[in-house]
Parts: sequence; structure tokens; C-alpha cells
Amino acid sequence: MACAVAAVGCGGAPQEQAAQSAEAQVFPFSIPDEKPSYPISSSMEATYDRYAPTPQQNELYSVFRFSPITGFDYSNGDGRQSRRDPSRIVKVGDTYYMWYTLRVTPAGAPAGAKGCSEDIPSVDWDLADIGYATSKDGFNWTEQGVAVHRPEAPTVGFRSISTPEILVWGDKYYLYYQAFEIASGTVGDNCPVAMAEADSPDGPWKRVDKVILPTGGEGDWDQFNIHDPLPVVMNGKIYMYYKADWNYLDESGTKTKESDRYHIRSMGVAVGDNPYGPFVKSELNPVLSSGHETQLFRFKEGVAAILTRDGNEHYTVQYSPDGFNFKQASIGGLMPDASGLYDPDAFTNTKDGRGITWGICHVNKYSSGSTHSVMFRFDCDLSQDVDDPEMKINHVRPKYEDFMNQGLTAKQKSTIPGAGSVKDAKLY
Amino acid sequence: MACAVAAVGCGGAPQEQAAQSAEAQVFPFSIPDEKPSYPISSSMEATYDRYAPTPQQNELYSVFRFSPITGFDYSNGDGRQSRRDPSRIVKVGDTYYMWYTLRVTPAGAPAGAKGCSEDIPSVDWDLADIGYATSKDGFNWTEQGVAVHRPEAPTVGFRSISTPEILVWGDKYYLYYQAFEIASGTVGDNCPVAMAEADSPDGPWKRVDKVILPTGGEGDWDQFNIHDPLPVVMNGKIYMYYKADWNYLDESGTKTKESDRYHIRSMGVAVGDNPYGPFVKSELNPVLSSGHETQLFRFKEGVAAILTRDGNEHYTVQYSPDGFNFKQASIGGLMPDASGLYDPDAFTNTKDGRGITWGICHVNKYSSGSTHSVMFRFDCDLSQDVDDPEMKINHVRPKYEDFMNQGLTAKQKSTIPGAGSVKDAKLY
Repeated sequence: MACAVAAVGCGGAPQEQAAQSAEAQVFPFSIPDEKPSYPISSSMEATYDRYAPTPQQNELYSVFRFSPITGFDYSNGDGRQSRRDPSRIVKVGDTYYMWYTLRVTPAGAPAGAKGCSEDIPSVDWDLADIGYATSKDGFNWTEQGVAVHRPEAPTVGFRSISTPEILVWGDKYYLYYQAFEIASGTVGDNCPVAMAEADSPDGPWKRVDKVILPTGGEGDWDQFNIHDPLPVVMNGKIYMYYKADWNYLDESGTKTKESDRYHIRSMGVAVGDNPYGPFVKSELNPVLSSGHETQLFRFKEGVAAILTRDGNEHYTVQYSPDGFNFKQASIGGLMPDASGLYDPDAFTNTKDGRGITWGICHVNKYSSGSTHSVMFRFDCDLSQDVDDPEMKINHVRPKYEDFMNQGLTAKQKSTIPGAGSVKDAKLY
Repeated sequence: MACAVAAVGCGGAPQEQAAQSAEAQVFPFSIPDEKPSYPISSSMEATYDRYAPTPQQNELYSVFRFSPITGFDYSNGDGRQSRRDPSRIVKVGDTYYMWYTLRVTPAGAPAGAKGCSEDIPSVDWDLADIGYATSKDGFNWTEQGVAVHRPEAPTVGFRSISTPEILVWGDKYYLYYQAFEIASGTVGDNCPVAMAEADSPDGPWKRVDKVILPTGGEGDWDQFNIHDPLPVVMNGKIYMYYKADWNYLDESGTKTKESDRYHIRSMGVAVGDNPYGPFVKSELNPVLSSGHETQLFRFKEGVAAILTRDGNEHYTVQYSPDGFNFKQASIGGLMPDASGLYDPDAFTNTKDGRGITWGICHVNKYSSGSTHSVMFRFDCDLSQDVDDPEMKINHVRPKYEDFMNQGLTAKQKSTIPGAGSVKDAKLY
């Protein structure tokens, strides 16, 4: 038949199917559990090689559903208070604990590198401390105040500490966070990672005032910053994942608007035997090509990652059996940003992580004069122990307003013929 | 070093890197254009194997930005009028033409299989005709009325004709559409494809009252329906892509709520020498494992596809040089649904399709008593001739309302502890 001949070898590049010699067969109405031996298309090959026959059978596929949470003060959205970057959630007794970037700056909202001062922040995570909150159900929270105050100058982190992540190791608690010495935005968003420790999730926290995970050497992908430290316990060790920003300078070493277009966010990992380090960076870094404010959880013998924004493989869940080599496991639509996951297996050193069903994420409300972020909850079914059909649907329908919220830019409206003539996104 | 050793072979499954013998090297700050020869992670391998070093360099990566359009009557959203399933857009002189499912049912809104009648539709695409509209800029449209009326019984399509797609071949115009004999939902959503032809895009249209693309044989993946016919001209032939729904029956051949969970939508292709067929189905079908109301456009020597909803590889753009073997080329976030693309190369038989920058899509406003759909526009940069930095961003930030629009279901609110206690999605 004409089509099949064209597909299996008439000119052009050799196809994957060319290697198969089985006779052609019409694909059946009920999908086979195993990859058929007869010729199938590249796309059907990928179904079997990467996923499960259907998304519903893929433990690492889920939609994410979002809910408001109570208990946090955003000073009516005036930009003088922010809650963001929630950590992993830890359950102690019947209480959930969560840590986050807490910014209370009564003198003003974020004002950029030029507008900032000793008490006016440059960005949303400037002049911040580490706050914490508790909850009995994960929806209704009570703020408990500051867990870790930023130190006095010149100790690392004296300008701001942000983006905390928790580690439970032995009987103790460890918080890792970004430690800024200058206002972010003044010279990049540059910082290393520092930490604090406590015997109880309620504190008191004792800062370990030194760099725990240093930036890379000159010319290395992670030479300028180590963001989003995220420890996972696996194989008896601490796998400290971290994000670095790279590929944004031009040939002369200058960050320009054009060179910054190609800005990459990626994750590396460094492995240590104890919470103080040293953490040895993997020679395979970066281990996740994509993702910004990525979240990881223990799954089966390895680790899974939720990659939301940035990079070729944004909007994916990835899995790695060894912690170093990740592959795309599913593709999502609207996914949580910068979330902290409730992963009961994060620190148990299990060989069979069960997965997750909820976490807390944030949304950035960036606008001139009132920039802040707000935390809320997501639920999902990325768990081996749950099978919720309503989380496994894969024909999600966004609303008209969702589309209109992602409209043309002002520049595009002025350059695309006719675009400026239609102003009203409302339908009726 | 401990990490690298673990990555390249200490126990567990062999890693891709094990085959490489080059010495380890720290990844550089500026991403290399070509895949390095030293060991890199699986994730960085995928970057080079599937995409470009950065999404901005990937011609098949884009965000989609949405705009309202003018000129269509939705009777104030009461469900008695609908406009959906826009066809590809064809430019003739200085005028854009578009065809679509036009439903005007003054007797009532869609009422389901049990509530439908001779003049009350079952679903949104029941009791429909093919309408058309014209525009000078793609934003402001003028409805021109019905292009093709559904025939009288017993001609195929007498219950409804919907989901049109246009083909320009020689000097003539051809419309392909779903042709229903019974109200959709009564017995599945079953239909074959019929067509009409005209010498001008303004008509008059002459129906070719026969099945142009038949459903498959018993037990075949496409045994029950042929949806979304979509012709593309390539290699001097007409590649007629089409969707079928499959894998939704249990072992006894019954569609149940449980068996329907695994419902698959996929695309096949059938190739013909002329608009009347016969179209010979590829032995590799399905050629796209995923996608619902998928859109295709000519790109380079082959064809690219926008897969929005349904399947393991939803939310992707795919590319196939031969029209049969597609591979994931990029991952999107909020993508247009059921769109009709403005693809000037769709019918030119080019060996170098330039890509697309806009189209018209729809959103389904499904609710009891007022179900209808609404068309609007998207813009993007999936074009070799354009490089719009504002379309190549990959750190899209949804709004709080977008997340809240994807909330827990009623059942989930009653079963997830605490979920029912937080009712107000508003922040302040």
C-alpha cells in the first residue's frame, strides 16, 4: 500500500520502522498492554517507550487542582508583605509544618535595584526572613512567626534569607536557604546556600553562618548562584539538588537584553554524608535541563521532579532511578509553581517512595508598586497508593478567561495588523 | 568522585552514560551548540536529541497568546447558538475565509441524548450546518451565513454536519466534514466523513453526498468514527489526517464509566491522489498517539502538529518529516483548542513549509441548559520567518484566577480532609 511504503523506506531518512520486519497489521481498538511486534509509528513507539499505554495507567501523570488556603497576611495586596517559596511540608504528630520566605517591609513594596534601600526591598525575596506556619489539615494554617532571622552584617545572608527547604536527619531539623549579601537585582540574583539547625520543628533555630554549598568555579555553569536548595535522602546519603541560572552573558561577558533571552535555569545535585556537607557536585550536572523552582519527591527507588516553568522540558514530571539521570515521565498543563510537597518519604531513605497527593505552591503578583506573592494549595495523584480518576483526566478544558489572561503584549498589539482594534476580552 | 561513580555504573540499571568513555568535565556557563562528547546527564542528552540548546532557538517552540474576535452571534450565551471547530483560514486576494460548525437552534440549547428531538440538539455539534465568515485582518470578522446546509434524510449527514476542514486543490475548493445520521450521544459520537465542493470560496457549494473516508473494519482502532478530517498537501498527494476515538469498551464490548476512563483519541492518516479519494489508510496508524481536535501545518519538508488535549503527549508540538512518523518537538502550556490555522503553505505542495503565526480556536462553555462554544484568536511564533522574543519566553506565569479555575471537584471536596472548609477563592 502506498502509505506504508512511503513510511518504511521510500527515500529520505531511514525510519525507526525500517528495522522491523514483522508484517503490517491494523492497530486494534483496545490498546495492547505491551508494545506490538508489528510496525507502529514513531509516536506509538514513544507511548510504550516513555509512558504507559494510557495516561491513566501512568503513576507519574496527574492533573493538578488548586485551592485557597487560610491564615496568611498579605496586607491587602499592597506589596508590603509577601509569603512565598513554601518548603516541603513535614508532619510531626498530627501537625503539618511548613517554612517559607517571609517578607514584612512596612517601609515599602519591592522597588527594584535602583529604588531599594536599607528598608525598602529590591525584589519580592529581598529583606526577607524564614517564616513558618502549622496546620491540622493543610488548608487552614496558623502563622507562627519567624523561624530564622537573617543575620547581622557581615555574616552571609545579612541582606536577606529566602527560599527555605527542610531536611529531617536523625533527630534533628535543618533548614537550607539562599543567603544574600547584596540586594537581589543589584548584581544579578547571586547567592550561595547557608543553613540553620534545630532539635524541634518549633525551634529555636541556630544559624550555621557559613556557606554550605558554594557556587562553581569561573566559567562553570553554576559559577554565579546556587538557588532552591532541595535535600532528598536516598541510598543513605543526602542528595542536595539546587538550581543555577546560566547562559545569559554575551561573548564579552556582559548580560544584555539579547543575551539574556537565552537564560537557562537548570538543576544540579551534590551529594553529602551529613547535613553539614561537604556536598560533592555530580560530574553529570546539570541533571535536569529544565525547570525553575522545581520540586522533587522520592518515588520508588529514585526521585521524581515536577518541572513547571523554563526550559525545553518545562511542564513535565520527570523520573530518575539513580538521582542523576532523569527522563520525561509525563506532560502536564497547569502545574504548581515553586511548590513545597507533602512527601512523607522524603527523609526515610526508603527503597519504594510512594509519591505525593498535595503540596503548597505560590503565585507571583508582580506589578509596579505592589509586588508580592501568595501561597495556595494543590492536590494531585502522583501516588502509588491512590487512584483518583478525577486526577487522571487528560482532557482539561481551560476557561475563556484563562486564555484572555495570556494575551498579546503591548508591543505585539501595536505590530500585529488588526490586533489593536479589539479591546474587550469580555464576551457578552 | 562519589556522585559521578554512582551515575556511571554503581549497581542498578546501566546508564546511557556508561557507553561514553570521555573524561568528565564541568558543564560550561555558556551552553555548547553541539552535544558535548564528555559524559552528560540523560536530561541534557534529551536537550540535544529532541530540541535545540534553548527553547528560543527551537523554531517549533512558542507560547500562544489569545485575543477576542468580533462578528459572531452567540445569542447572549443562552446555548441556542454556537460557533466552533474553525477550519484552516484561507486568504483569497485580501480577504481571509474561515468555515466552522454553525449551530442555530432557536428551540433550545443542547439537551443530551435523552432530551434531544428534531429541533433540540443533543450536543453542541448536533443539528449543525457549515457556516463561514470573512475578515480583512483576522480579528474583525463578518459572518456570511451558511456555506453548506445539512442534507435531507436519508443522505449521510442529514442529522448534522460539523467540524469542517478546507482543501484548495487546483482551482477548486473542497470542504470535508463529519456527517451524522443520528444525534451524537445517542449511540456514541459515530460518523464518517463527507464533503462538498465549489469553484469559489463564496460558493455555491455542491455536496458530494457519499462517504469519503469510511470507518475501519470490526476490531480496528478506527472502527466507530472518523473525526476532524484535516487534509494537507505534500509530495503531490493529499494527506488526509483524521481522529478516531478508541479503547473505551470493556471485555464484553460495553462502554462503561470504568472502561471509558481509558478512552484514547489519536490521529491516523490516509493518502489520496485527488479530493474524491480513495484515501488509503497508513499501515502505521495511529500516527499521533495523542491529541484531540489536533491541528496540523506544513513545516519544512514535512508536517507539524499542535496537540492540545488528551493523551500521553498532549500539550506538545510534534514534527514529522514524512507525515507518518511524528516526534515531540516542544512542550507548551496553555495551547489553543480545536484551532484552524492560517497556514499559507497548506496546499502549495512546498518542500519548505514556513510555519504559522496565528489561527482561530474555540472554547467550550459547557453547562446545563446553555452549552455552546465561542471562537477567538491565537497568535504564536511557529514560523521560520519570524523571531518574536515575546513568543519565545518560557517562564509563563499564570494568574491566581487561572489556578482557581482548575479547582477540586465536588467529590474531591467531600473526601479530601479539610478541602470543604475553604470556600472562598478570592484573596483579599
